[in-house]
Amino acid sequence: MTLSTREHQNSRQVRIQDGFWNKYMELVRSTVIPYQWDALNDRIPDAEPSRAIKNFRIAAGLEEGEFWGFIFQDSDVAKWLEAVGYSLANHPDSELEQTADEVIDLIAKAQHENGYLNTYFTIKEPGKEWTNLNDAHELYCAGHMMEAAVAYYESTGKRKLLDVMCKFADHIDSVFGPEPGKLKGYDGHQEIELALVKLYRATGEERYLKLSQYFIDERGAKPHFLVEEWEKRGRTSHWAKGPSPSPDLQYNQSHLPVREQSVAVGHSVRAVYMYTAMADLARLSGDQGLLEACRRLWDNTTKKQMYITGGIGSTHHGEAFSFDYDLPNDTIYAETCASIGLIFFANRMLQLEAKSEYADVLERALYNNVIGSMSLDGKQYFYVNPLEVWPEASERNPSRRHVKAVRQKWFGCSCCPPNVARLLSSLNDYIYTVSADRNTVYTHLFIGSEAQLELQGGKIALKQQSSLPWNNHVKFEVNPETDGIFTLALRIPAWCEGKAEMKLNGLPFDYSVKDGYALIERQWAKGDVIEWKPELQTQLITARPEVRANAGKTAIVRGPLVYCLEAVDNGSPLTVVSILRDTKLDAKFDDGLLGGAVVIEGEGRAEDSAVWSGSEDLYRPLASAGKSKPVQLKAVPYYLWGNREQGEMIVWIRTASE
Amino acid sequence: MTLSTREHQNSRQVRIQDGFWNKYMELVRSTVIPYQWDALNDRIPDAEPSRAIKNFRIAAGLEEGEFWGFIFQDSDVAKWLEAVGYSLANHPDSELEQTADEVIDLIAKAQHENGYLNTYFTIKEPGKEWTNLNDAHELYCAGHMMEAAVAYYESTGKRKLLDVMCKFADHIDSVFGPEPGKLKGYDGHQEIELALVKLYRATGEERYLKLSQYFIDERGAKPHFLVEEWEKRGRTSHWAKGPSPSPDLQYNQSHLPVREQSVAVGHSVRAVYMYTAMADLARLSGDQGLLEACRRLWDNTTKKQMYITGGIGSTHHGEAFSFDYDLPNDTIYAETCASIGLIFFANRMLQLEAKSEYADVLERALYNNVIGSMSLDGKQYFYVNPLEVWPEASERNPSRRHVKAVRQKWFGCSCCPPNVARLLSSLNDYIYTVSADRNTVYTHLFIGSEAQLELQGGKIALKQQSSLPWNNHVKFEVNPETDGIFTLALRIPAWCEGKAEMKLNGLPFDYSVKDGYALIERQWAKGDVIEWKPELQTQLITARPEVRANAGKTAIVRGPLVYCLEAVDNGSPLTVVSILRDTKLDAKFDDGLLGGAVVIEGEGRAEDSAVWSGSEDLYRPLASAGKSKPVQLKAVPYYLWGNREQGEMIVWIRTASE
Repeated sequence: MTLSTREHQNSRQVRIQDGFWNKYMELVRSTVIPYQWDALNDRIPDAEPSRAIKNFRIAAGLEEGEFWGFIFQDSDVAKWLEAVGYSLANHPDSELEQTADEVIDLIAKAQHENGYLNTYFTIKEPGKEWTNLNDAHELYCAGHMMEAAVAYYESTGKRKLLDVMCKFADHIDSVFGPEPGKLKGYDGHQEIELALVKLYRATGEERYLKLSQYFIDERGAKPHFLVEEWEKRGRTSHWAKGPSPSPDLQYNQSHLPVREQSVAVGHSVRAVYMYTAMADLARLSGDQGLLEACRRLWDNTTKKQMYITGGIGSTHHGEAFSFDYDLPNDTIYAETCASIGLIFFANRMLQLEAKSEYADVLERALYNNVIGSMSLDGKQYFYVNPLEVWPEASERNPSRRHVKAVRQKWFGCSCCPPNVARLLSSLNDYIYTVSADRNTVYTHLFIGSEAQLELQGGKIALKQQSSLPWNNHVKFEVNPETDGIFTLALRIPAWCEGKAEMKLNGLPFDYSVKDGYALIERQWAKGDVIEWKPELQTQLITARPEVRANAGKTAIVRGPLVYCLEAVDNGSPLTVVSILRDTKLDAKFDDGLLGGAVVIEGEGRAEDSAVWSGSEDLYRPLASAGKSKPVQLKAVPYYLWGNREQGEMIVWIRTASE
Repeated sequence: MTLSTREHQNSRQVRIQDGFWNKYMELVRSTVIPYQWDALNDRIPDAEPSRAIKNFRIAAGLEEGEFWGFIFQDSDVAKWLEAVGYSLANHPDSELEQTADEVIDLIAKAQHENGYLNTYFTIKEPGKEWTNLNDAHELYCAGHMMEAAVAYYESTGKRKLLDVMCKFADHIDSVFGPEPGKLKGYDGHQEIELALVKLYRATGEERYLKLSQYFIDERGAKPHFLVEEWEKRGRTSHWAKGPSPSPDLQYNQSHLPVREQSVAVGHSVRAVYMYTAMADLARLSGDQGLLEACRRLWDNTTKKQMYITGGIGSTHHGEAFSFDYDLPNDTIYAETCASIGLIFFANRMLQLEAKSEYADVLERALYNNVIGSMSLDGKQYFYVNPLEVWPEASERNPSRRHVKAVRQKWFGCSCCPPNVARLLSSLNDYIYTVSADRNTVYTHLFIGSEAQLELQGGKIALKQQSSLPWNNHVKFEVNPETDGIFTLALRIPAWCEGKAEMKLNGLPFDYSVKDGYALIERQWAKGDVIEWKPELQTQLITARPEVRANAGKTAIVRGPLVYCLEAVDNGSPLTVVSILRDTKLDAKFDDGLLGGAVVIEGEGRAEDSAVWSGSEDLYRPLASAGKSKPVQLKAVPYYLWGNREQGEMIVWIRTASE
């Protein structure tokens, strides 16, 4: 187990230097983190107030006042602090560090003598701690603060928040567990399970790992803890007055023991956070049953319930999965946090077993759903990430009201923006993993970076240069401290369909392939250079026939990027256009588009709207509807949509044969 | 005004004798009315209880007990009685009449001394009458009972219920009106406005007409009555505990004075019931402003917000209109009652001005949405009438949960089944109108029937034979009491695109056309025969480009019938098929299909699902997805869908060019 711990710490010695990603890292540092700090302090005009910091001040006894916000408001502070932790590792900033230290002091002051920490219960319902795990998010908030503590400790070396959270973890350990007198339960919103694994990694304290394992193992056991708790509470809920129905166990994946689960159900963020912890524990314990469950849930999530953008969650009712192949584009949910959770899950599966399909999904979610959720200036966010938007319907058809046509400044329930910040500022953690025997370095993402890795044969420096997503030139410079044998494994992205050229020190190199990775096992010497060119094709993609929503439609994809049509480029209604099945797709870099991006043009058809003008007919014979006309379609990367003027957008485009 | 009254009474002397419709009339008489009687008395196993009769027994003091059901439960009894009234006119039935008489005795016993009648307020909230017009449906229930009273009186000549309802109307007239001390208000659910017009017609009492006019004129006036009432009530609602938000005035169309309304908004049944009364009043008063509003609202409803099946209401949130051209097929509402109300509205517009477009819509709603809502055995009903059903999504995606894949036995809120019964049993009222000068007989529907009509020049008997919807042979035998000049006007259905042949006594006849009617003005003699053949084409129909939901899709229509594809005939997923734009469509009568119906076959394409089998790919390059294969598609009339096995259904089919 020590090995895994070290392995992770090694792989964190990565600094991103990348043409595409640097601006995101910098945006998070210079804009998102300060902006969110203002938001947490209610200093954003016209945005919904957060009061998350104020809650801590009240709980710490520094101010009088009422609790404000959602019961899980504390977690916004935690996620912000976690992002700050990662950001400081990449880019020291004494002013920011001082602000963070002050927040940490405040948090420490809000902690109870026994270690308990939660501003809602401290301010609003003292004495009611641990009486409503189903709704109250106590362990969820604890988990996020543990993640923050680990991130901050690992980047700054400062232990204060880590100590606070260890004390809280010790308290939780005294409250929950199989021993007589303890609560045999778990949280209504999974999160602490993965956080305790991190806390274990940072501290080496095995009790934290054991506690995580306990929460995972206990989940879904009969009699159902959350139902018994609800009975004990008098059948009430935090969310409604009066009697409330029995908890929906599928909603938080406590309907079955986790090892018996095969289908992704319920609230999608809860699901992927749980799967992430399951994968962590499968890796650390070698538990085969848990591993098999992880694989089944991965397959169901990504092969039956995932949008092409890496979004998951088909319905806003319960922000949830619905069922296999139900992927409506217009009433979609695809919450930003859910895709981030999917990235966590993929990352942990890669730590378990290096198979490129995990990284393919990780990359898909990252380059599309996740960065698309944020405006280019880092100040506005989508919570829901649709694949089809008709702004008027978003406003006027209640079934689509959750689908916003423009990004919002801040949300009352603002889980997503700080989640984006913490992911992007820790992106360096997602590029490489090192095998358990420390003989193989896997490259999952092609992101320019400089890594220091400790392998079995010694330390190596690995410099990656990448021109993705616009071009396919990737170059690795390998510098082992001492010459030694190890394997460099490069992911062969699914999008290149196996067409990837490699050169070693300028000469073509015939690599072997395993589980989707190109393997180069050799005696490396200082200055060895690998050039890597996975073919960056622009392709039309289709969905399985079972996906009713995409019948007769196609999506444009180029490398990791999914494309979309926007009304600003292609007119309105967007649905009058179709794309020729066999069109040539021209990809060219457009300097002028939102900081520069490759746009794709292809030949399509547009229905003749003119034949309808001057008529009020709603329906008429097809024969009289006129011939469609040739039209040039212009697609832009999905992640850039909605950054110009408000208008319609579609990812899935009707196909035409002629 | 007397003229209009007489005119209507004349046009009611129509008896249906029709190959297609007789079975519906008979079904209503022999099955639906008895079945619904059992339902009202809670004798249907496994169906939601109604207790509507029991409520009256309790209110009448014949039983002890609590009120049960919706606050508008009384209206189910009223609609049933109204259907019984119509049915007895067509088919005397002493046993049924005795049952109805007993119900009427019961209703009379439940009436208060002052005329007030409503079981909810009598049993549950005595003293609170008229304090919550917004929610309580008191005038709505009164309106339905007035309609029942008129129908029962006109068919049986029995005045008891009519007297009860006149007494109630007199009471209402003493409570509402512009005079000091009266409530300056109107109901939250329009209905009484059209009912009072009927009561006026049956009794000649102008006060009832004036009261209807008052309700219509007052609606939308400022300050808003329903808001002031809500303030006075302490800002509460019948539907929720605690403080409730201010009433949504658009929901019940009280946001603007009716003469200023141009767009159909809010709850669709409320809307069309109101428009019906507006058209009644515009006819009776000659009010041009009201007529213009009716025309605008007609245009908006039918040319921008109507499904091809005659369904209206795009969203289940508030059972409401959403906005122009928003006609989703899968999350649709298209409530049965709304289409019935649309038929009322069309009927009143035809009485105002004979333009075939009104009858085209009437026919469309009748032959598709309305009869499609009922199972062939008359015992199960759709409340929501979708144009696209994926049964698994109806069960497992909450956004589609309101869309049932199978008809239901009875509903807690069971407005639709008795509404179907009263419409079908009064269908004879919708075939003809006579012009205000009584010189023209308009034929709106081609339904075999025998009519006795009183014209300016004397009485005539008109016998219509029709083989619609399967064939296009329509024949009229005209028998004037004395030879005389009048005009017979036959609707030229929009679906024949002006291609309609006429013969007079066996010889081709060159008719003139006005407002969509073929006019035959002549000196008629006994035994004159008109043969009429509007071309019954099978066509592919397309929707305006603004209707995003139908982009690239087509619907099959033959005459008044819209067709659909069902999985039982075409496999699943249904969405893999498309239909060739230029396919020949074969229409042939299939004896074996659910009592016999014309089915339509055409050539289509089916995507090659086989290329996906053995693979778990959710997405793949279009180029590798395989060629589509020729397939023969079989479409059945929409109104018959869901009468075989449960499965997918679509009305709008993707088109293919090759």
